[in-house]
Amino acid sequence: MLFERIESEGLAHYSYLVGDRGEAMVIDPRRDCQVYMEKAARRGYRIRHIMETHRHEDFVSGSVELSEQSGAEIWHAEPELEYGYGSTVSDGQSWKIGRLRVKSMHTPGHTTGHMSYILHEAGGAPWIIFTGDALFAGDLGRTDLAGPNRIREMTDLLYNSLFRKILPLGDHMIVCPAHGAGSVCGESIADRFWTTIGMERMHNPKLKEDHAAFMSGMARELERPPYFRKMEELNRTGPPLLWTLPVPAPLSPAEFEQKAGGALVLDTRMNASFGASHIPGALSIWLQGLPGFAGWFIRHDIPILLVLEEEDPLPAVTYLARLGYDRIDGYLSGGMLGWQMYGGESHSIKMVPVESVCRTLDSDETAWLLDVRGGDELGREGEIAGAHHIHITVLPQHIDEVPGDRPVFIFCGSGLRSMIAGSILKREGWSDLSVVLGGTAGWKSARCPVRRP
Amino acid sequence: MLFERIESEGLAHYSYLVGDRGEAMVIDPRRDCQVYMEKAARRGYRIRHIMETHRHEDFVSGSVELSEQSGAEIWHAEPELEYGYGSTVSDGQSWKIGRLRVKSMHTPGHTTGHMSYILHEAGGAPWIIFTGDALFAGDLGRTDLAGPNRIREMTDLLYNSLFRKILPLGDHMIVCPAHGAGSVCGESIADRFWTTIGMERMHNPKLKEDHAAFMSGMARELERPPYFRKMEELNRTGPPLLWTLPVPAPLSPAEFEQKAGGALVLDTRMNASFGASHIPGALSIWLQGLPGFAGWFIRHDIPILLVLEEEDPLPAVTYLARLGYDRIDGYLSGGMLGWQMYGGESHSIKMVPVESVCRTLDSDETAWLLDVRGGDELGREGEIAGAHHIHITVLPQHIDEVPGDRPVFIFCGSGLRSMIAGSILKREGWSDLSVVLGGTAGWKSARCPVRRP
Amino acid sequence: MLFERIESEGLAHYSYLVGDRGEAMVIDPRRDCQVYMEKAARRGYRIRHIMETHRHEDFVSGSVELSEQSGAEIWHAEPELEYGYGSTVSDGQSWKIGRLRVKSMHTPGHTTGHMSYILHEAGGAPWIIFTGDALFAGDLGRTDLAGPNRIREMTDLLYNSLFRKILPLGDHMIVCPAHGAGSVCGESIADRFWTTIGMERMHNPKLKEDHAAFMSGMARELERPPYFRKMEELNRTGPPLLWTLPVPAPLSPAEFEQKAGGALVLDTRMNASFGASHIPGALSIWLQGLPGFAGWFIRHDIPILLVLEEEDPLPAVTYLARLGYDRIDGYLSGGMLGWQMYGGESHSIKMVPVESVCRTLDSDETAWLLDVRGGDELGREGEIAGAHHIHITVLPQHIDEVPGDRPVFIFCGSGLRSMIAGSILKREGWSDLSVVLGGTAGWKSARCPVRRP
Amino acid sequence: MLFERIESEGLAHYSYLVGDRGEAMVIDPRRDCQVYMEKAARRGYRIRHIMETHRHEDFVSGSVELSEQSGAEIWHAEPELEYGYGSTVSDGQSWKIGRLRVKSMHTPGHTTGHMSYILHEAGGAPWIIFTGDALFAGDLGRTDLAGPNRIREMTDLLYNSLFRKILPLGDHMIVCPAHGAGSVCGESIADRFWTTIGMERMHNPKLKEDHAAFMSGMARELERPPYFRKMEELNRTGPPLLWTLPVPAPLSPAEFEQKAGGALVLDTRMNASFGASHIPGALSIWLQGLPGFAGWFIRHDIPILLVLEEEDPLPAVTYLARLGYDRIDGYLSGGMLGWQMYGGESHSIKMVPVESVCRTLDSDETAWLLDVRGGDELGREGEIAGAHHIHITVLPQHIDEVPGDRPVFIFCGSGLRSMIAGSILKREGWSDLSVVLGGTAGWKSARCPVRRP
Repeated sequence: MLFERIESEGLAHYSYLVGDRGEAMVIDPRRDCQVYMEKAARRGYRIRHIMETHRHEDFVSGSVELSEQSGAEIWHAEPELEYGYGSTVSDGQSWKIGRLRVKSMHTPGHTTGHMSYILHEAGGAPWIIFTGDALFAGDLGRTDLAGPNRIREMTDLLYNSLFRKILPLGDHMIVCPAHGAGSVCGESIADRFWTTIGMERMHNPKLKEDHAAFMSGMARELERPPYFRKMEELNRTGPPLLWTLPVPAPLSPAEFEQKAGGALVLDTRMNASFGASHIPGALSIWLQGLPGFAGWFIRHDIPILLVLEEEDPLPAVTYLARLGYDRIDGYLSGGMLGWQMYGGESHSIKMVPVESVCRTLDSDETAWLLDVRGGDELGREGEIAGAHHIHITVLPQHIDEVPGDRPVFIFCGSGLRSMIAGSILKREGWSDLSVVLGGTAGWKSARCPVRRP
Repeated sequence: MLFERIESEGLAHYSYLVGDRGEAMVIDPRRDCQVYMEKAARRGYRIRHIMETHRHEDFVSGSVELSEQSGAEIWHAEPELEYGYGSTVSDGQSWKIGRLRVKSMHTPGHTTGHMSYILHEAGGAPWIIFTGDALFAGDLGRTDLAGPNRIREMTDLLYNSLFRKILPLGDHMIVCPAHGAGSVCGESIADRFWTTIGMERMHNPKLKEDHAAFMSGMARELERPPYFRKMEELNRTGPPLLWTLPVPAPLSPAEFEQKAGGALVLDTRMNASFGASHIPGALSIWLQGLPGFAGWFIRHDIPILLVLEEEDPLPAVTYLARLGYDRIDGYLSGGMLGWQMYGGESHSIKMVPVESVCRTLDSDETAWLLDVRGGDELGREGEIAGAHHIHITVLPQHIDEVPGDRPVFIFCGSGLRSMIAGSILKREGWSDLSVVLGGTAGWKSARCPVRRP
Repeated sequence: MLFERIESEGLAHYSYLVGDRGEAMVIDPRRDCQVYMEKAARRGYRIRHIMETHRHEDFVSGSVELSEQSGAEIWHAEPELEYGYGSTVSDGQSWKIGRLRVKSMHTPGHTTGHMSYILHEAGGAPWIIFTGDALFAGDLGRTDLAGPNRIREMTDLLYNSLFRKILPLGDHMIVCPAHGAGSVCGESIADRFWTTIGMERMHNPKLKEDHAAFMSGMARELERPPYFRKMEELNRTGPPLLWTLPVPAPLSPAEFEQKAGGALVLDTRMNASFGASHIPGALSIWLQGLPGFAGWFIRHDIPILLVLEEEDPLPAVTYLARLGYDRIDGYLSGGMLGWQMYGGESHSIKMVPVESVCRTLDSDETAWLLDVRGGDELGREGEIAGAHHIHITVLPQHIDEVPGDRPVFIFCGSGLRSMIAGSILKREGWSDLSVVLGGTAGWKSARCPVRRP
Repeated sequence: MLFERIESEGLAHYSYLVGDRGEAMVIDPRRDCQVYMEKAARRGYRIRHIMETHRHEDFVSGSVELSEQSGAEIWHAEPELEYGYGSTVSDGQSWKIGRLRVKSMHTPGHTTGHMSYILHEAGGAPWIIFTGDALFAGDLGRTDLAGPNRIREMTDLLYNSLFRKILPLGDHMIVCPAHGAGSVCGESIADRFWTTIGMERMHNPKLKEDHAAFMSGMARELERPPYFRKMEELNRTGPPLLWTLPVPAPLSPAEFEQKAGGALVLDTRMNASFGASHIPGALSIWLQGLPGFAGWFIRHDIPILLVLEEEDPLPAVTYLARLGYDRIDGYLSGGMLGWQMYGGESHSIKMVPVESVCRTLDSDETAWLLDVRGGDELGREGEIAGAHHIHITVLPQHIDEVPGDRPVFIFCGSGLRSMIAGSILKREGWSDLSVVLGGTAGWKSARCPVRRP
């Protein structure tokens, strides 16, 4: 048998490769799908079926790519995909994978066509359920994607899917969702990398509630990154085929400078490197932050130029390709060191350790504190007295709320997201910016005052 | 977090590397423990604890090796290990691994000091139980290792461990045993690579029974490979340290010939290659069969010389080191092709396809059929009319039952084990031997007659 | 800088990846060109130029594939390629790769458009010459490919290329040819993996001669595998793009049996495995023998089904793709063991060790000895008294010379090629066949009589 | 055959693994010698001989380690090693490696016992010379290691070794030295990764001269890092065995803080990261700079604590182990981000882009310019008007020349070494420090004034 969970870091996306007796299926593949082809081929499996639990909004589905490369059939049940590609699944349909059997179960709520797939073991017993975005470890899929006026309807559907379909399967069943901790698809997915229906029944805070509480708990709109719309479009019509990842060109500082005018300069180095010296106009998102933040701040219709910490551009390219960014025109060969030796113009953003900020703020009355953490973090971790809160994800829309004539001190949890914010403000002309290294975590460690909500 | 199941192929041994916040533990490590060191180091974890569920009989424990390399402490509760190394676990003891907690639970039956370890997630809920050899997917650990007169006592202990301790933890808990399908530690471990207490409660055939049925079902002696005694001794006193795997010397045919006198020639090629041509006196065990069969037929006090299919000797060396075979004096450079080009003496064993055997046996009254399958297989798959049954594992002790003056046709399930048998008989002077390719599986596929028991 | 020689095993084909300051070129790339893309990308190089020394006959050029994947320009000077793709090189043309410079030098003889490329180091001095198939270590490229009536003309061209162009560059220059020992492109390429012009001037037997001796030594026609014509065609028109290697389907024995009718069954196991048991009609070529022998015996217009020793089909697929075999319809899942367990029909070919053949041949007057070695080997190693010589490569054309009513004993150097011959004869109906294990090497080792020519 | 050059990055150390017919030798192995064991074992080679060209000063020799692991014999000819381990080579001694032959040739000058080894190919012709530190591409080994009063004597020996022994072997021979471009063992080794005697005869600037010019050119003392003495001692007596690389413990910020008192904090992040925020008292050497700079500034008798850019500590540990630093007590888990979130105290060093420095220096009369480049660079690249020159390697000894009461602007070629200098000055109490990003390269690119010497 073959059973592998393939995790796409950053997205916290889980896909699964399941096989028996030479036949395999993949559930919710990612776009860079060579991993499934290789693993299957080297172990002697043929990928026969590609199962989509639902139409994904947070990444480019790899189903079309994998189908082209493997010849496998795509199965899904989202109405709007119907004529695009693949075959429509109906509730209770069944497939054989060697001695195993897979059955579909309609579990709407996150989307209307959301399917779960139940894997039965060789002996016939139901064993593992692939729950897509219906049920996560410690969380549930959001129900606000069909629009604000359908939230109640979708939430009610999810309630039924969970309490009338999934939970009744029994505590003993293993739950394999499409996301783990860190995904934007759940507010607070738990760090419980393997789970069961019983674990969720007992410990998932959203499954303890009665119907009314469930409805009111779920029925609110969450943030939606602007790139979701692009993902929807790509996943509905079928994204461009890659075959292999595009390899961006290494550009000399002079070439880079020349091309930078018509492109977005994306700098994936860590916050401190960026703050110390960066190319004017660059957007800062540290490498591991790309899956979570690129989609909020980068348009799909502008070419990207990369500034990297490391020599190898492929990790950044992989992260971006998963979000549909295929136009990467090059990267700065030799990195920022090369740029500096070339005498290229560079900017910096002040960085201050928390203890010095404590002191500064006591005395500096003009200082304006910007806290870019999310609302839930504020509730959980406490607020900083006197800080103005603009969530990093909506900073571009609310940028005018930040004063241009006062020293701005930017906080997040650690100092990473505040450097994104710093780079956005800097691009737009703000100049007296200070990123607080260590963020609110350091703030509390250093016993600076925090106001509990 | 870090959670990896490391599987030792062939032995179907599972060990686990679990970590959180830079701290890690390993449950039941194997001897070639570089895998834990590497995985932990590269991800930034320090191995702090090594947990032994019990004293293993079927492989050399890697605890001492890993403790030397990592500095981690060894924990176990087998009385006879007590003064050797490590620290004694008591029931209910608890350890922290980052935000996780692990608690021991005494679950005797397989051995008297058998411990299970319960992993609690960050929030505190019991989550995963490492059951060692107490509970497998679809099977239970054997209870006959303390000797025939203690079987009832040990079986009763296991009953209590299962029904009063493990099962009451709840259906939802994930079960992580020390072995998967294919291990000699269970008769019939299921091909259910991840399981839960609920799955076992419902589908493990040995857990459905009442106490009396349980006692009578378990209370019988199983086969015990002779190398178990050596494993016991090594695991009690601490095996020799390896640091890195020993690399045997490539030997020219002439060097090999010279050394072959004082050594066992072990040929790990597939059955057909061996049958076609092999070095006189060689023992045949195909590469993937080493973990399961080497221990039955190879003594620990004689050096081994290898004949390989492939250039790389390390896979065979790894399998043998896990069973405590450290004296591998070399391998035949250039393989059998080189031996043949050298003009070295070679022997062969006849191989016959099943359909021709059907016909032969009809007409040849002198033919003597030897079936080397296990008793359980005979019951499950049916017997061949007129065949004599000697399980491959006890062939050396029962070799005199095989006539020397009649043509012997050797059967197993496929033709792999029968070539082991063929090589054993050939070494001892039998000459008119035919291995049936395809074995009883082919026999039945070809619709040759099989007698149901 | 970047300098890597990429060797395609079996073909003994050398390609080169050379780079400086972010710019790279590839000389004579192979078809599975992911290796260049990966190595360049991860180290920060962009492949700018693809240099073809000549139109290859012995493998599918990877230039078009690599150009598609990298965007690099293809350079060559073969007139018949001119309108197909790429740009035409003229003698003395020059390119920059970072601080390095490459210059072309027209070195016809092997082909009319054959180019060598001279790499100049950063300081400007000529340093390395990529000689393609003009000059190998210990050998020269063949001059008979333009047809028998142009051999003298082409040989004379080669003489000039060598003695008036390449050798005058000086003893100190490093020579990087397109092939190493084992290639069909040279009769006797030396096992001298790095060489210089001086080493060749002094030790290459074909470079010591005067013009007349050179002409008579070179001016003879060598064997030409039938697949050369296909390679010519593919390399002239541009081979189909792969992007990634095709992954053949694992087929159950029943599926395999069904498809076998319309396909060639190619068995890549070692000789002894094949002889012991194989699918009727299968062609035997051991895995590492594929690059050298598949092209002689396999047509490009028939689908291939594979029988493998190992689980992983990709090594065989890679070897075949390099020779333009893209129609691999599947492979036997579970290998021959699975086939035997399925009860599939199987054949065998007798295998005999040399010492027993010595004795047999002394007494058996009907025995017919077939020696399939090449003419040069016979001259070098000696002939077996009474043997009939048909080179393995022309056996299909001369098969009627082998008697059908006498026991045939097949010899080659080791026993590998004789199993190819055995499988070809068996397919065509010969039945009393014996492959001599160890071949003439074993024959001599065992002191059986060999007749010196 | 087997021929691999194994390059130890940073040290620019080359070792060689050469084999034929199952026998192999290693020339000048490095300490982390698993690479030779693995490569030999997987390809079927036994390492029989370890050849030392000379006693190395710039890294810990791996001969003893490799000999322990492989059982191979060590050969060398340095008198002071004689009784320690291994066997003494005499001039003209010869060894067989399969069909190859190796002969020693005494080539003193760099050391008195320096041996070169000449590899003869299977046919018998001399082919490759391993020249150790006698002859590099474009450079020669230094002759000042035996002390200032023996320079002329050693230089004369080297002259004889080169002009009477090595060069007469002929232009065609391939030269394989112990170092490539970037090593401290040659002043200016060329970026010519493969070379020949002829290439060196023609293009090595030090080989063009007559005896008198040779003597005066070579006969001067070069810098000698303080760690050379430690290397000498270790290589004379035999360094401690590693078996596997030590894995340092990940330390939480609290643990790290506690241990930092008695240890050296070594920060291997890039210059900009370090400048932005670092632990007080930390020494800055960027990761790839460790092989070249750690030996100058780090004592062997103090434990090291690491601050890393990446999660994986093994690259830094490998670099340090090669220089004999085995006491690495841990590394900061979570990196500087974790430290900042912990609220740990941090310092910073100002960083300024070149263009702003130009302007500043024009107006700021108190500014003190510190140029830490080497004397040869100053000559080659030009000096900055008004700068004070202290080579980075002797900064600790000349630290008092740097004024404590003026703003210090630190220059090197790029900004990397100046951050080392900055960290050294900061540790010793200097506070008004600015590292010039881009260094003199940027300075020139930005057209700031440089004074030619």
